[in-house]
Amino acid sequence: MRTVKMVVEYDGTDFSGWQFQTNGRSVQGELERAAGELLQETVRVTGAGRTDAGVHARGQVCHYTTSSSMDTKSILRGVNALLPEDVVVRDVEIAPQEFHSRYSAKARVYRYYISEGPSALMRRYRWTLRYSLEISTMQECSKGILGEHDFKSFCKEQTEVNHYRCRVTKADWEKSGQDLIFEIVANRFLHGMVRALVGTIVEVGRGYRTIADFERICAASNRSEAGMAAPPTGLFLERVIYD
Amino acid sequence: MRTVKMVVEYDGTDFSGWQFQTNGRSVQGELERAAGELLQETVRVTGAGRTDAGVHARGQVCHYTTSSSMDTKSILRGVNALLPEDVVVRDVEIAPQEFHSRYSAKARVYRYYISEGPSALMRRYRWTLRYSLEISTMQECSKGILGEHDFKSFCKEQTEVNHYRCRVTKADWEKSGQDLIFEIVANRFLHGMVRALVGTIVEVGRGYRTIADFERICAASNRSEAGMAAPPTGLFLERVIYD
Repeated sequence: MRTVKMVVEYDGTDFSGWQFQTNGRSVQGELERAAGELLQETVRVTGAGRTDAGVHARGQVCHYTTSSSMDTKSILRGVNALLPEDVVVRDVEIAPQEFHSRYSAKARVYRYYISEGPSALMRRYRWTLRYSLEISTMQECSKGILGEHDFKSFCKEQTEVNHYRCRVTKADWEKSGQDLIFEIVANRFLHGMVRALVGTIVEVGRGYRTIADFERICAASNRSEAGMAAPPTGLFLERVIYD
Repeated sequence: MRTVKMVVEYDGTDFSGWQFQTNGRSVQGELERAAGELLQETVRVTGAGRTDAGVHARGQVCHYTTSSSMDTKSILRGVNALLPEDVVVRDVEIAPQEFHSRYSAKARVYRYYISEGPSALMRRYRWTLRYSLEISTMQECSKGILGEHDFKSFCKEQTEVNHYRCRVTKADWEKSGQDLIFEIVANRFLHGMVRALVGTIVEVGRGYRTIADFERICAASNRSEAGMAAPPTGLFLERVIYD
């Protein structure tokens, strides 16, 4: 058996999320169907991160094992020919047998895109705001989450996790044209974490909360203290980092 | 009466083109409806360039006259609130009475985006090729069209025009990631000209035609000599230049 690693791009707009669901279109389901059809065997795909409905990916990573000896170039072409146009495999390689897309990952990079004002062309890939934000105070909030912290205040109820600590190595706002882009890098992300962080930081940038409020929310370990989750449309899983 | 100038962005995917049609959704039609509703009078909008079905715009310019004294900020907000999400007005200003979006324009800037390989996220905004191109020969072709030339070989039959000469001041290919971007600036563009040029130049870049063939086609003044038109999905009217 060989372990196949794939880098995947998708437009999350018409998916009910990464994870397979009996009702609803999932990225995992499309990949398992396409790879299974190509390799003529049952394929079970595991992803590095389970993105929610509507969340996009430029560099999701997944893996599966196969008894097929098909070369990587043929897998790349073959799977893409069998996938719908909103999922594209960008790269295929044979990984060491022990490689696991989720457990071997050292860090994930997410980006969140906000548009200050509507955009006809990018409307599927932005959170469109009709008000403007104070980027300097948002940057100040982001500095405060660098390092290892408990992020329970920014996480949907999860029964699967033992603890809520994440080590954030980058959290940065940048302005580009009418876009505001938040890039965050961490060793792990909790369910709904980026969207809850962005939603809350935007409330600070708008003047509805202060930086001190934000610090209090971080310390509270209670999701109900934080702001609304930002919509999934603006969120991209950019890439997954391995050794 | 005041002359209102507007800069408009649109996603051409679901439009039958810029120009009003009795059957089919047009950008002009949407703008006339929205502005008319806002200003409470019949509005006739004239655009700088009549883009075809499926062609996008980042900076189309149009104008109309109105008896309303509404300020530009209120027009901007009001029209955007009444437009569907695939058309956005980016800027509104009061122009000199004699301003005409089409006849006052000194030049137009178009960009054509090719993706070498599929893209899930940009599929609506690219011509996706499954083969790769020799950018240096394509750049060579483009250099040949700089200056004033007859572009009849790259134009759909037009009864409205007296001549086919256009003065091209820029024609440049650039690589950016997996994208190839063609930017062309000219004082005027004939119907279907950019798509016919790109389609033909791609045949050269692919090795199906030579640079000498391309020069022969340019000199022939005959559309049937040129290659297939590139699809509308990759084409953007970037901006219109005035004095």
